[in-house]
Amino acid sequence: MGSVERIKNVARRVAKWHKAGHQVVVVPSAMSGETNRLLGLAKDISAHPNLREQDMLAATGEQASSALLAMALIELGVPARSYAGWQVPVNTDSSYTKARIKSIDPTRVQADLDAGRVVIVTGFQGVDDKGHITTLGRGGSDTSAVAMAAALNADECLIFTDVDGVYTTDPRVVPEARRMRVISFEEMLELASLGSKILQIRSVEFAGKYRVPVRVLSSLTDPDMPIDEEDSSGTLITFEEDTKMEAAVVSGIAFSRDEAKFTLRAVPDTPGVAYSILGPIAEANIDVDMILQNLSVQGTTDFSFTVNRADAERTQEILEKQIGPAIGAGEIVADSKVCKVSIVGIGMRSHAGVASTMFRALAEEGINIQMISTSEIKTSVIIDDKYMELAVRTLHRVFELDQEKN
Amino acid sequence: MGSVERIKNVARRVAKWHKAGHQVVVVPSAMSGETNRLLGLAKDISAHPNLREQDMLAATGEQASSALLAMALIELGVPARSYAGWQVPVNTDSSYTKARIKSIDPTRVQADLDAGRVVIVTGFQGVDDKGHITTLGRGGSDTSAVAMAAALNADECLIFTDVDGVYTTDPRVVPEARRMRVISFEEMLELASLGSKILQIRSVEFAGKYRVPVRVLSSLTDPDMPIDEEDSSGTLITFEEDTKMEAAVVSGIAFSRDEAKFTLRAVPDTPGVAYSILGPIAEANIDVDMILQNLSVQGTTDFSFTVNRADAERTQEILEKQIGPAIGAGEIVADSKVCKVSIVGIGMRSHAGVASTMFRALAEEGINIQMISTSEIKTSVIIDDKYMELAVRTLHRVFELDQEKN
Repeated sequence: MGSVERIKNVARRVAKWHKAGHQVVVVPSAMSGETNRLLGLAKDISAHPNLREQDMLAATGEQASSALLAMALIELGVPARSYAGWQVPVNTDSSYTKARIKSIDPTRVQADLDAGRVVIVTGFQGVDDKGHITTLGRGGSDTSAVAMAAALNADECLIFTDVDGVYTTDPRVVPEARRMRVISFEEMLELASLGSKILQIRSVEFAGKYRVPVRVLSSLTDPDMPIDEEDSSGTLITFEEDTKMEAAVVSGIAFSRDEAKFTLRAVPDTPGVAYSILGPIAEANIDVDMILQNLSVQGTTDFSFTVNRADAERTQEILEKQIGPAIGAGEIVADSKVCKVSIVGIGMRSHAGVASTMFRALAEEGINIQMISTSEIKTSVIIDDKYMELAVRTLHRVFELDQEKN
Repeated sequence: MGSVERIKNVARRVAKWHKAGHQVVVVPSAMSGETNRLLGLAKDISAHPNLREQDMLAATGEQASSALLAMALIELGVPARSYAGWQVPVNTDSSYTKARIKSIDPTRVQADLDAGRVVIVTGFQGVDDKGHITTLGRGGSDTSAVAMAAALNADECLIFTDVDGVYTTDPRVVPEARRMRVISFEEMLELASLGSKILQIRSVEFAGKYRVPVRVLSSLTDPDMPIDEEDSSGTLITFEEDTKMEAAVVSGIAFSRDEAKFTLRAVPDTPGVAYSILGPIAEANIDVDMILQNLSVQGTTDFSFTVNRADAERTQEILEKQIGPAIGAGEIVADSKVCKVSIVGIGMRSHAGVASTMFRALAEEGINIQMISTSEIKTSVIIDDKYMELAVRTLHRVFELDQEKN
């Protein structure tokens, strides 16, 4: 949520749904810039702020915007009440700054709904079993909203964002990118895990686990637009794989520059070497994405893997100080100038040759593929990041994503 | 607490006490200007914000400053943990924006203290028995601190303010005003109720109820000053009325412009007329301070009373619409250009003639006294507010408050 004006707009939008007879729970994010302001204060005090206290601090942003939204609704004559995560309660584990929701007790919220109130529940936060405040990490308000919808058995969870839906790819890279009216839950999950920033991946996981229909739509439209129109705008994430959807072999293209690639050269090719390398990385809580082990030549091999670019520095340190000496590797090569480009589509299940179409298209543009990773409904490649936009545009054209199919 | 710099200074000060072996609980206020910023946002949304939501909003200010202070302490190597009011819990009634503390459970805080931590408890807020967040009103952090000290049986409650203690009167009005090293609890209670802004009156009441020694001292001193020196600075509010203190007949002079006077002329002088007037005022939750009923002349009387100036508008409305017509009063005269000046001293108990010394001194300056109110240890007068500074200076001189006595 942005300024006070924007809070008033949200209130008008919510009031519209309430007056049409819907029971509404709203999960607001903090006001625009507020979370950054708070974390900035923390950084001014400590380069590495204590994480429990950081959550205590960051949680105030959503509490403030929730209270303001409740006031704005009451000002419009709509009974409303805001609750912080602990008041619901939204129970989480104790992983400060990236807690996971364990359960939500809907009793209190449902009682308010039944009393005719709009209920506002702070997004992004919860409380652990010792009563400490936790937060769910960036984008966590989406997860809060979906989890709340699941706990209440809601008919639908509307997620208002600064875009008007899920696109075949980022329109800033491919102007022909097209908004999808429907996307399957599995495709959305892949897109979210592959770098699409529209929804936090955990919110999609929650939607899948509890089969909550989620609609991604724009917060920038006229708050007074007719409900029918609003409820058919944006992109619906659905669990019904109807025939229309099957028509699209590839639904979307995701890409991410948040990649860093490491190669250990001349690693002795002995059993367990992969574990010797990846074990210490995992222990440091660093997620490894793609892994590539070359064919053995004269008893040694080259071993490559990618991690999130934010973890690159720590990974390098572990490799140099710990793993390299331990396994007697040769050179350690770090490459942060790589990116990941992925095609996603549930149609890939039933259509052979989709990946090879991708590889051929990239080859024709002279783009070298460094690593490949596939799953049932996606194919990802690591390439030189200077080719990222070219690759995305090429694939968007080759798979005809600019043409309406669903 | 002011800026980040100021939070760091508070942390240094607290770390000093902790390192000297003291168990320390800190009750911070919000960062400077933050409460006003939040209430400003509320006012932008609603002229009369819902009070429950206003508390939900305002409580975030102290939560943020508490978390930042905990971070700053941890950064200094001092184990620390912050708690919001509900986490302690600090139990209050449900009077939003002016809740009263009912009880504090010290178990959790004491456990952290025993584990060697500094504990930071958000001031100004609590939680009611239904789990709603409440706030204690302006200056409520003082009350939180004293109540917390009482619950923990603390040796002393230090209240750091932007002044270096309690003065015989406001030094901005009387440059000769002198800091008192000791003041009795009863005098402090009178001063607080008579307009001294140094401590919220409820904090003094709490100190009295639980006999918590409170020291008012400056937050602007060097945070690294020696503990002995710090702990003898400022003003100690004591329960021991020693001989030194009895020497001072008048200890301090309080004054306030927050007064409004109303006079109903030609009120029928029948039994119960005072109740007919003051009943509806009390029902509207407006506190009446002084009351004056003139001698009856030809079956009618003039009836005057004062209220806080903030309540003047509502009082006028009740008088004009409700009371005036009901009792058949003549003219209703409102006068907001009055002030209250009071002398306070426990020595007044044992010294006759103190009040008349006050009246004579004011008369000699040509200041007309409109109303008088007395208690065992104070005398207050209502006068034209243009004479306020003159009255205060005159009384300060007449009672020789510029001369050290205790």
